[in-house]
Amino acid sequence: MHPTSPTILATTIRALAFDVFGTVVDWRSSVIAEGQALGARLGLQADWAALADAWRKGYFASMAQVARGELAWDTIDALHRRVLDQLLPQHGLQALGEADRALFNTVWHRLAPWPDTVAGLSRLKQGHTITTLSNGNLALLVAMAKHAGLPWDAVLTAELFGCFKPDPAVYLGAARLLGLAPAQVLMVAAHPFDLVAAQRAGLKTAYIPRPDEYGPGGRMEPVGSAVFDIVATDFIDLARQLGS
Amino acid sequence: MHPTSPTILATTIRALAFDVFGTVVDWRSSVIAEGQALGARLGLQADWAALADAWRKGYFASMAQVARGELAWDTIDALHRRVLDQLLPQHGLQALGEADRALFNTVWHRLAPWPDTVAGLSRLKQGHTITTLSNGNLALLVAMAKHAGLPWDAVLTAELFGCFKPDPAVYLGAARLLGLAPAQVLMVAAHPFDLVAAQRAGLKTAYIPRPDEYGPGGRMEPVGSAVFDIVATDFIDLARQLGS
Repeated sequence: MHPTSPTILATTIRALAFDVFGTVVDWRSSVIAEGQALGARLGLQADWAALADAWRKGYFASMAQVARGELAWDTIDALHRRVLDQLLPQHGLQALGEADRALFNTVWHRLAPWPDTVAGLSRLKQGHTITTLSNGNLALLVAMAKHAGLPWDAVLTAELFGCFKPDPAVYLGAARLLGLAPAQVLMVAAHPFDLVAAQRAGLKTAYIPRPDEYGPGGRMEPVGSAVFDIVATDFIDLARQLGS
Repeated sequence: MHPTSPTILATTIRALAFDVFGTVVDWRSSVIAEGQALGARLGLQADWAALADAWRKGYFASMAQVARGELAWDTIDALHRRVLDQLLPQHGLQALGEADRALFNTVWHRLAPWPDTVAGLSRLKQGHTITTLSNGNLALLVAMAKHAGLPWDAVLTAELFGCFKPDPAVYLGAARLLGLAPAQVLMVAAHPFDLVAAQRAGLKTAYIPRPDEYGPGGRMEPVGSAVFDIVATDFIDLARQLGS
């Protein structure tokens, strides 16, 4: 697959659909910081970075279970809570009470944007429709947008289609709701697996590497032989490349 | 049914769901103005007010046909176009070509807000989640929000549920997606039929009469014996009553 020329892209793209966790917001630093504050308040010691990474890993494992039919579809809020309850004893945090568990589970509603996120989205919004296209449930994404000041035109989520990315139904469903052909929608993500699936569904793709997603020196999903229409260093660079 | 006290309401309501056509935007003046501009450009005479009223009437009739199973579910953009094609010959506008029909059909994407709309929504957004809950399709509502500067936190539509208001599935589906109990959602509308249906589904209700919806001296749907939790003169008054 060859990338579409920048000039053609800028004239055909009508909407940008953004992956959220890792692409728009820095989930890892946010979960660690809120965990540390919780620990300080309750006098609990834990390796909060290890918990954050395990929680994220459990999120992917839960979605895979749903995709294989081993677990009924549920919101990411519910799946996050299920994973958290499994992890707390392994991290010496079994003493955490119900109210604190419920509150900590909504840390995913309070994730901090990357430094370029709000300025970049505001600029991209001038010339395009900008929407989420996340596996996060709608209530989570709306709360996050209010907390972080994310100026979405629409909040689209896999929840609307009863499955999770990378199921093609999510990408095709988003294009349909936007009233657009798949090739008029640009999927923006920091994760090649998401972009490759969007590409297979006919969407255009923009890859924004977020090298700090898993912390300094942390792992990044390899791009392999995938080729995307745009590669940009951040959302400001993406706006520049799209001429907005 | 007795109205909930203002104090209780202000503390329990978490999200406001707005009807759009007539409640948020002045569809009639907008359709007439764009029709007049179209007529002037093409040298066509017509009673644009009569066309606007008939178009709106045809929209309700189409949704009723869908509800009775006489017509397959379709987007409001598609239903609007079907009605427009039926009406044009009756209004001496059969000469209108395909490109102009397609463009005029999207006048519903370009409706003007009432004078209090943007200021009121901006104020209400500070303390609450504000969402559309319209029969208009998502693409239409997103285009309208960008055109009119409507600061929605989410764009919810009957389209997500494959039926139209006043079907209870629309009101209950919105509460579910927002992660709220129905009683934590305040349905805001200028139309008693919409509010009565929301109330039956367990939502709280705010009635905002828009006496100019059908033009000066135009008809208003009678309230009858219905009782709503809040009656407000406009969105600024609604914000005041909700303490935001």
